[in-house]
Amino acid sequence: MAGGVEFERLVRVQATLRRKNIDALLVSQPHNRRYLSGYTAPDHGIQETSGFLLIPGDGPPYLLTDSRFTLQAEAEAPLYQVALYSKGLLKLLERLQKKIGFKTLAFESDYFLHSSFLRLASLWAKKGLTLRPESGLIEQMRVVKDEHELHLLRQSTRLNEQVFQSVYQTIEPGMTEREIALAIDLTMREMGAEGPSFDTIVAFGTNAARPHAVPTDRELLAGDLVLIDMGLVHKGYCSDMTRTFVFGKPDQTYLDRHRLVRQAMLAGIGTIRAGVTGAEVDRAARRVLAEGGYGEAFGHGLGHGVGVAVHEDPRLSPRGRKQLRAGMVVTVEPGLYLADWGGIRLENMVVVTDTGCEVLNRDTTGLDL
Amino acid sequence: MAGGVEFERLVRVQATLRRKNIDALLVSQPHNRRYLSGYTAPDHGIQETSGFLLIPGDGPPYLLTDSRFTLQAEAEAPLYQVALYSKGLLKLLERLQKKIGFKTLAFESDYFLHSSFLRLASLWAKKGLTLRPESGLIEQMRVVKDEHELHLLRQSTRLNEQVFQSVYQTIEPGMTEREIALAIDLTMREMGAEGPSFDTIVAFGTNAARPHAVPTDRELLAGDLVLIDMGLVHKGYCSDMTRTFVFGKPDQTYLDRHRLVRQAMLAGIGTIRAGVTGAEVDRAARRVLAEGGYGEAFGHGLGHGVGVAVHEDPRLSPRGRKQLRAGMVVTVEPGLYLADWGGIRLENMVVVTDTGCEVLNRDTTGLDL
Repeated sequence: MAGGVEFERLVRVQATLRRKNIDALLVSQPHNRRYLSGYTAPDHGIQETSGFLLIPGDGPPYLLTDSRFTLQAEAEAPLYQVALYSKGLLKLLERLQKKIGFKTLAFESDYFLHSSFLRLASLWAKKGLTLRPESGLIEQMRVVKDEHELHLLRQSTRLNEQVFQSVYQTIEPGMTEREIALAIDLTMREMGAEGPSFDTIVAFGTNAARPHAVPTDRELLAGDLVLIDMGLVHKGYCSDMTRTFVFGKPDQTYLDRHRLVRQAMLAGIGTIRAGVTGAEVDRAARRVLAEGGYGEAFGHGLGHGVGVAVHEDPRLSPRGRKQLRAGMVVTVEPGLYLADWGGIRLENMVVVTDTGCEVLNRDTTGLDL
Repeated sequence: MAGGVEFERLVRVQATLRRKNIDALLVSQPHNRRYLSGYTAPDHGIQETSGFLLIPGDGPPYLLTDSRFTLQAEAEAPLYQVALYSKGLLKLLERLQKKIGFKTLAFESDYFLHSSFLRLASLWAKKGLTLRPESGLIEQMRVVKDEHELHLLRQSTRLNEQVFQSVYQTIEPGMTEREIALAIDLTMREMGAEGPSFDTIVAFGTNAARPHAVPTDRELLAGDLVLIDMGLVHKGYCSDMTRTFVFGKPDQTYLDRHRLVRQAMLAGIGTIRAGVTGAEVDRAARRVLAEGGYGEAFGHGLGHGVGVAVHEDPRLSPRGRKQLRAGMVVTVEPGLYLADWGGIRLENMVVVTDTGCEVLNRDTTGLDL
């Protein structure tokens, strides 16, 4: 299965390269690398890469890496010839350029360090060859998901909800944010996920006023508001879900604000269909919060695409001018943040269809108030 | 304590900027950002930054971030004025340039995307200002550790060994690589570490032939070789240690190879002192493996610096031409990898001194054969 998917993607990217008169493309972005090749080794930051793809417009593609990854690269990326840069990437590119004979080399400007560019540009200029920065070439291939990808995203969401429920059932007074976050991360691994797709957020009370709260040693008290934002990676595909609830009996203020955020989420989801822009969806949700008197309390975009990366195109935000297309997968996650009180965020993932959208989430915790 | 450290670092970096005729420096590298400011928010890859520092040669420095991180930035980096880029980094830089009046802006070429450079260069050219790529400016400040940093690195190593021993005692036949790796990660958090400093490696038998093995569901059998490479982050400082042992009774082949790797490690450590180059240390260890007939089986460098980053300068490798200085902290980690058999790597961390080095590790598991 995997091999077939990657072969089809390779054919598509090579056709794109020929159409754009690019002789070869150097792929450095880790998600693009995995998406095109099946090679799963992660980068430890951009300064410690586990490899590159070199894809000519025609003929066999290469996976460039070092000896630490040879066996893994050969096992996971059978379509690619593995070439080692034991004397540095530049020397290897020079050798492959001679062998393959490409003249115009494109690179991923959005995931290529300025210092690497300086070195490559100097070499390429010396040889009289052309270097061309490209932006979003593979990312744009990734935004619309095929059936196999949707299947994996549904599975990823299902697994994420199972992990959430499994931990939710064990929450007791006195547990800390860190303990719950740790239990979530552990349960993800136990249930077979590759790991979290981002740093798990567990925030009680006022801590939830930070949209990207980091779990602390604060202990849970009865009556506390609890915000959990979590996602996992399943066979390379990410999930992302947020639930907010009160541990104990919610007061009227909480109930009012929670219902408002829920209405905002439903308004956003109700607006989604192919042809609508990200800004229109954002506006529908934002208007609900503004009309409820909390326009200033929602400081981030409404949502983002999800696939092999947990944050990818399209963006649902005031600046999202592109039209949604069927097969895109996005989060819808309005929030309300008040420094002295706390925060509420609710987040579901949906698949855009021609007539509306399919909500991937089924978990109703804190949504049924 | 923390505030004092960061003030002293700020004074040093501002003096460096004035000496180099740089009016302001934009810091994008996450470890440099934390080292200079105390702000701990991590990046989720270079494409999802949690902020920048803008440090003028004179006067108050700024921490640039978005509204998700305002509270955390203000709490953790009291020396810095927090400024939000709600309309993008470029707009904010334009505003601060007018306010502060700097003309020459330096940026970190080794941690700045080519596409970001293109946009910034276009703006700066339009304004007739100067943009200057810099490489290693803060990294070079970081290579020599002060007493406070050495204290934290010793604590980090001690905690890492406690975690190792705690898990080592529970290893039983039938456990998988993934289970042991997960137990290590969990125990790190339970014992108070911020988290692992890199992906924990647990490899049995032939899996250990991959220097960067990813834990699998392979089950431990009596007689299996076990390689564990692990490190954690403690108050911002990293540890890194590798142990290899046999679960059960080692055979003569294993014993011979293990002793050889141990001799290589001791040869490397015995060579370290201020004034020696990284290449000389690498050569001393490599010679032992070559003379034992395994020169080809050791495909990576001997070691690397450790501090707020788990991999930093200096490098102990055939290309390490720089002289070591007192206060540098490096790993020494020779290895021997045979695809059909397995691998052995042993790794300790040491502090370079004027007369030799201080070995930070005390754990002798698998070193006493």
